[in-house]
Amino acid sequence: MTNTPVRAISAFPAADPADLSALPDDIAARIMAVQEKAGFVPNVFLAFARRPEEFRAFFAYHDALMDKPGNLDKAEREMIVVATSAANQCQYCVIAHGAILRVRAKNPLIADQIAGNYRKADITARQRAMLDFAMKVSAGAATTGPEDVAALQSHGFSTEDVWDIAAIAAFFGMSNRMANVMALRPNDEFFAMGR
Amino acid sequence: MTNTPVRAISAFPAADPADLSALPDDIAARIMAVQEKAGFVPNVFLAFARRPEEFRAFFAYHDALMDKPGNLDKAEREMIVVATSAANQCQYCVIAHGAILRVRAKNPLIADQIAGNYRKADITARQRAMLDFAMKVSAGAATTGPEDVAALQSHGFSTEDVWDIAAIAAFFGMSNRMANVMALRPNDEFFAMGR
Amino acid sequence: MTNTPVRAISAFPAADPADLSALPDDIAARIMAVQEKAGFVPNVFLAFARRPEEFRAFFAYHDALMDKPGNLDKAEREMIVVATSAANQCQYCVIAHGAILRVRAKNPLIADQIAGNYRKADITARQRAMLDFAMKVSAGAATTGPEDVAALQSHGFSTEDVWDIAAIAAFFGMSNRMANVMALRPNDEFFAMGR
Amino acid sequence: MTNTPVRAISAFPAADPADLSALPDDIAARIMAVQEKAGFVPNVFLAFARRPEEFRAFFAYHDALMDKPGNLDKAEREMIVVATSAANQCQYCVIAHGAILRVRAKNPLIADQIAGNYRKADITARQRAMLDFAMKVSAGAATTGPEDVAALQSHGFSTEDVWDIAAIAAFFGMSNRMANVMALRPNDEFFAMGR
Amino acid sequence: MTNTPVRAISAFPAADPADLSALPDDIAARIMAVQEKAGFVPNVFLAFARRPEEFRAFFAYHDALMDKPGNLDKAEREMIVVATSAANQCQYCVIAHGAILRVRAKNPLIADQIAGNYRKADITARQRAMLDFAMKVSAGAATTGPEDVAALQSHGFSTEDVWDIAAIAAFFGMSNRMANVMALRPNDEFFAMGR
Amino acid sequence: MTNTPVRAISAFPAADPADLSALPDDIAARIMAVQEKAGFVPNVFLAFARRPEEFRAFFAYHDALMDKPGNLDKAEREMIVVATSAANQCQYCVIAHGAILRVRAKNPLIADQIAGNYRKADITARQRAMLDFAMKVSAGAATTGPEDVAALQSHGFSTEDVWDIAAIAAFFGMSNRMANVMALRPNDEFFAMGR
Repeated sequence: MTNTPVRAISAFPAADPADLSALPDDIAARIMAVQEKAGFVPNVFLAFARRPEEFRAFFAYHDALMDKPGNLDKAEREMIVVATSAANQCQYCVIAHGAILRVRAKNPLIADQIAGNYRKADITARQRAMLDFAMKVSAGAATTGPEDVAALQSHGFSTEDVWDIAAIAAFFGMSNRMANVMALRPNDEFFAMGR
Repeated sequence: MTNTPVRAISAFPAADPADLSALPDDIAARIMAVQEKAGFVPNVFLAFARRPEEFRAFFAYHDALMDKPGNLDKAEREMIVVATSAANQCQYCVIAHGAILRVRAKNPLIADQIAGNYRKADITARQRAMLDFAMKVSAGAATTGPEDVAALQSHGFSTEDVWDIAAIAAFFGMSNRMANVMALRPNDEFFAMGR
Repeated sequence: MTNTPVRAISAFPAADPADLSALPDDIAARIMAVQEKAGFVPNVFLAFARRPEEFRAFFAYHDALMDKPGNLDKAEREMIVVATSAANQCQYCVIAHGAILRVRAKNPLIADQIAGNYRKADITARQRAMLDFAMKVSAGAATTGPEDVAALQSHGFSTEDVWDIAAIAAFFGMSNRMANVMALRPNDEFFAMGR
Repeated sequence: MTNTPVRAISAFPAADPADLSALPDDIAARIMAVQEKAGFVPNVFLAFARRPEEFRAFFAYHDALMDKPGNLDKAEREMIVVATSAANQCQYCVIAHGAILRVRAKNPLIADQIAGNYRKADITARQRAMLDFAMKVSAGAATTGPEDVAALQSHGFSTEDVWDIAAIAAFFGMSNRMANVMALRPNDEFFAMGR
Repeated sequence: MTNTPVRAISAFPAADPADLSALPDDIAARIMAVQEKAGFVPNVFLAFARRPEEFRAFFAYHDALMDKPGNLDKAEREMIVVATSAANQCQYCVIAHGAILRVRAKNPLIADQIAGNYRKADITARQRAMLDFAMKVSAGAATTGPEDVAALQSHGFSTEDVWDIAAIAAFFGMSNRMANVMALRPNDEFFAMGR
Repeated sequence: MTNTPVRAISAFPAADPADLSALPDDIAARIMAVQEKAGFVPNVFLAFARRPEEFRAFFAYHDALMDKPGNLDKAEREMIVVATSAANQCQYCVIAHGAILRVRAKNPLIADQIAGNYRKADITARQRAMLDFAMKVSAGAATTGPEDVAALQSHGFSTEDVWDIAAIAAFFGMSNRMANVMALRPNDEFFAMGR
């Protein structure tokens, strides 16, 4: 395995984390902030930086869905990302958000369990219902209907939670597609994080 | 057919176009601007208004992709929306963006042709290649690769165009899922527009 | 869009509506009758005319299913055509029968709603059950069984109605395949009819 | 296996071959003719007899496609029926037309080979191309195009042959759906015929 | 049909039944035993003989599942093989095990009925439940769960039976894949056996 | 996440690693040997132990495929397991064999890359061809043919290698189905192994 090729960060030109001077100030600032917090710059930031307007909209949308208060805790939001990204075969998203899920859940096993088959993971019945709906939004949104909302309500989810689950599945469906087209490479740091 | 039920705008609470006072100023202003330009408020604006941060991110992303300059003209961008939304069975997106496509292309036939089967539509070989790639991003992004980029380049598309096609397909994949979960109803005005 | 290519009526030789003299008398007569009634000759007649025996069987079958009395009204029969043809991506059938559906239902919205996603259309629960069964016949007839008949009966459909729904879905499944292989072009007149 | 249930001919009422007097004369005559020739009445005749207009159109269409002259011999036409009916899981059609194929081809092995997996059957490269196209018409007609016609032409098929292959696949697609909805039972006589 | 090509036993080199001297003694003995019992050597033995360790493991696994005592009789075990092999389009397995099923069930019709569409076969409700589960294991094992076990238990199946059904479906899923990759040819003797 | 349920090893009764006395000697010995080598007993051994004949055949088959010499090194064999198990959503197999792959390849990243999307992993073109074929065997063996063998040969694979790739994909397809039906739980030790 010594001669294994190593893929580039992205099939499109990406920003250089060592030289952010060419980027708009707000984008450079966001990247420096994440660098400071995480200790490295997740490649998704470098890959989107070339399109400043899309960068801003993408991360604003991300933050609106993932950092908001609500009945879904942060680990549960990441569970949705990991389960739907695995179904979409998005290597970057499964690995990067798998790491975040481990950290958020303080559980070194949960991300690989959900990526492998969420139906066999150590989750509650409520979380199973949440992921079943997220997967339906991801793979067959055209067939969703009131019966899905009723099933979620029977597990204590509110109307706002239903929107949150759907929106997270839909947003990361977009992210999964972009990451796959870019062949976005997960940073090496993600693989062992939270284990 | 006299007793046909008429669906609500959305399965979730939606803003009332006759009373925008409860909305944040920037969102009310955007809605008034589109009302003035189009003569009515497309329901997607009313449905998203209840989530101001998501509203802002959604339309910022939309504008970044659909109003930008590039080798794809505005009608071609709408072709991507119509073809992929039809595959995702998004009634709202096919009808609303079908209307916009007719207007942008000054062609009363093109939207229904593409929604029905883009492979049989009156489009150029270059547009066919564009839509083939958009559909692959929509339905099988995990299998995209350099061979897809090469196919597009043989039709004169640049790297930036490849990103644009992928990003439009991915963004509307998200939009399609949200509209289907909301059961978002297309405004009556769209059906005859541009015919 | 000025240089858009315009497709031929069919990928196979088609009859010339201005010269029907080469056709068998009964076929020419049928074409002239539809011309008189509709004001134009739908291309499906011109495309099938080259095969007189198939033409006769095709339209005899069509008439037996679409013009017969029964609990399904004519608009409902066209709903089945539009929903299943959309799933089969038959551009000709969606556009031509969408036009007929608008006329039959005196409803300018219904065809595009059903073609987009019949689950989100302004239809009754009974019509939804009818279309659910038609779609199952179209995409998974091998799995139909007594439980499907029972579901239809609970909405007031008779055994004869069940046959009618199945037969319309099956017949247009054939028609959809032929139209797609022919790349049958919808006449321009259909697009605005009934709006 | 002694108490195995035996299914009825059809889930719908079927004609009684011992009493054809209730049927229209032409339909009774057709049934008597096939009885005389085959030694029994294939159940498809009895199942369709209750709908005389559909019976006439169905068998007229069948005869137009299966008994016509052309580059496809009668065994090859039956190969198309068997391959596509197997894909559609139509028990009646695979068993009944498998029997006819064995007789037409004077080959006791060919029907089971094709029903099992036509790609591994003892057929010529030309027949393989014919069946590949028939299967594409059956399962993905929306994606057929000039490249399929070219592939067939390279094996010596004419434009008329292309139509024949497509029409047979499309017609039996209809037949498969009706037989599955009816749960049409193959006559016992078919199973050993031609072996 | 006179010039029909006849396929080889396997796309890989296979043992010659007339000269088993090159094979390990235990494998030659097993082949001679089956020859003596059946009157011919099923090609699967000749095709696997080149890989003695795999041969031994394959047939040991086969025997452990198919010859064991339990609530499933031998015909029912073969029903599982035929139904799942048909879904996997394994020509060899459908034809060879269809023959064995006819013999085990003393029923000349059952194999072709199940291969065509097991949902329309002359089987009991209990056997239908058995095959529904086997098909789910074959095509969607990731979604199986306690509800499937409960459904089987309501038909009188024990936990051991559930394992047996799953194991037979899984083992022949492996066999189907190998036979398809080898293009394993069914012996002529199988086609008429038990009719 | 404090109240997360923890799944049992298997939905079926499993052997107790602390008391192997009830098991046949050879099976107890194999389990003790793996315990000694790995430091723990992978749950697949405990889950299969209740069926001694199947246990013996399963692991004999496994060893014949995974420990044999050939052009595929041991890491490459595990790559096939991980890629196909991910497609089959087998949580146990992805996690257990992902761990073994990391150890065999001395590469902490490769397993998660391949499980996420092997097309975007750090592998050679030869390994990509190997995995493309393995995935085709796993998901569409009925359509494999000489063109697949030719593609592999162009990357230097021999006929024996083709068999090995197919057999590994087929064997683990069986294993994936059994593990999913059992809801086989990966041992905690696997998750961090080789990172």
